[in-house]
Amino acid sequence: MTANNGDGFDQVARDAVYRAMFTRRDVRSHFLPDPLDDDVLARLLLAAHHAPSVGFMQPWNFIVIRDAERRRHVRDLFLAAREQELPAMEADRQALYRKLKLEGICESALNICITCDRQRSHNSPLGRWHNPEMDLYSTVCAVQNFWLAARAEGVGVGWVSIIEAQALKSLLSIPEHVTPIAYLCVGRVSEFAARPDLETHGWGQRLPLPELIMSETFSGQGEALLKTSVSRLNAASVGLAPKP
Amino acid sequence: MTANNGDGFDQVARDAVYRAMFTRRDVRSHFLPDPLDDDVLARLLLAAHHAPSVGFMQPWNFIVIRDAERRRHVRDLFLAAREQELPAMEADRQALYRKLKLEGICESALNICITCDRQRSHNSPLGRWHNPEMDLYSTVCAVQNFWLAARAEGVGVGWVSIIEAQALKSLLSIPEHVTPIAYLCVGRVSEFAARPDLETHGWGQRLPLPELIMSETFSGQGEALLKTSVSRLNAASVGLAPKP
Repeated sequence: MTANNGDGFDQVARDAVYRAMFTRRDVRSHFLPDPLDDDVLARLLLAAHHAPSVGFMQPWNFIVIRDAERRRHVRDLFLAAREQELPAMEADRQALYRKLKLEGICESALNICITCDRQRSHNSPLGRWHNPEMDLYSTVCAVQNFWLAARAEGVGVGWVSIIEAQALKSLLSIPEHVTPIAYLCVGRVSEFAARPDLETHGWGQRLPLPELIMSETFSGQGEALLKTSVSRLNAASVGLAPKP
Repeated sequence: MTANNGDGFDQVARDAVYRAMFTRRDVRSHFLPDPLDDDVLARLLLAAHHAPSVGFMQPWNFIVIRDAERRRHVRDLFLAAREQELPAMEADRQALYRKLKLEGICESALNICITCDRQRSHNSPLGRWHNPEMDLYSTVCAVQNFWLAARAEGVGVGWVSIIEAQALKSLLSIPEHVTPIAYLCVGRVSEFAARPDLETHGWGQRLPLPELIMSETFSGQGEALLKTSVSRLNAASVGLAPKP
């Protein structure tokens, strides 16, 4: 392995990128009351703004929500949505579902709603004629950039998806042609959990990656060498090693 | 600023994460004929597999496509789709659209189709009762992890969105309940362009980030201090500085 295999990324830099991915968490439980510095938040937004976007559309907006009363209203939307969602769970998982902490809306330093303006490139929809949802996907890439940058800054982020979109649009005066993609709780945290909460609480397990790899077609067998490489790897062997 | 502000991320590590984001490119033009090492590809897939997923659903699969003839068929789908999309562009941009290189399907080392299995957690759709599209978004997060890890490894990735999804599903035997999210061209490159191709060719410009920030509600004014912080920043001031 060469010392510098990534056009400016040496081993330490490369491992830092992997470490951000492997230690990123969907944070609900460890928010601190500390405020979040505007300079830090500015960097996170700059990271989001450098996401890929179809046709260089940059369809995103960032609504920063700090007001405590507005956040209580959002949390009420979450609580109502959770009650509606509960019956959809398998009967023997409903008790566990109730115990899970699934948001940190009020106790995080601030909330951010990342939205997608569906009309931003309506005159030249490069890459969207066949797949109009590509602008939504671009906005999700912005969310993921924000999330990973936050991890590297020691800032926790939790994505609240248990919420009724139309009610949220109403509460935040989001116009019809704009889609809220992610409602995020953002702030300093006391710790990042070693594993995802849903894994710790037995809701699910990490799937074996080799079983998710297919060759040439869906369900296609093959790629034996690649699967062997994958089996030798795990998160601990990439990026998580103690730094020199 | 503290030397270590990100729970294990010192300044060098933090800057590496930003650098991956700011220098990532949607690569179409600079693929080399070199093969891609399975150990490198394994790491990229591990990165993708550590994306956040709603309800820890991990809805993704990774179809690795190497066969030259299959790739020519995919490229034919792209060429047909481009002809269909062209008339949707503003008249005075059609000549520019024709000149843009928008894929590297045949000349990259390999292709990967990242798919979303909509049924993987159908018995316990935590976080998807109100927003069933969350599994699609989780899969997009996996795409972005793959892309950023690739950048840190010096591997180019291009997302081909000009393609008819049903035709692609047919060609890759993707079943009805599985959605292809991203068709990626992946391989070693001669260079990463300094700016996005669409910016270089005048298709679009990076939007001013302060104008995309809103306060409390959509179009809400405010956040003057944050916007000042954002205005002081640019990609060159974060992560792109020469390393010590």
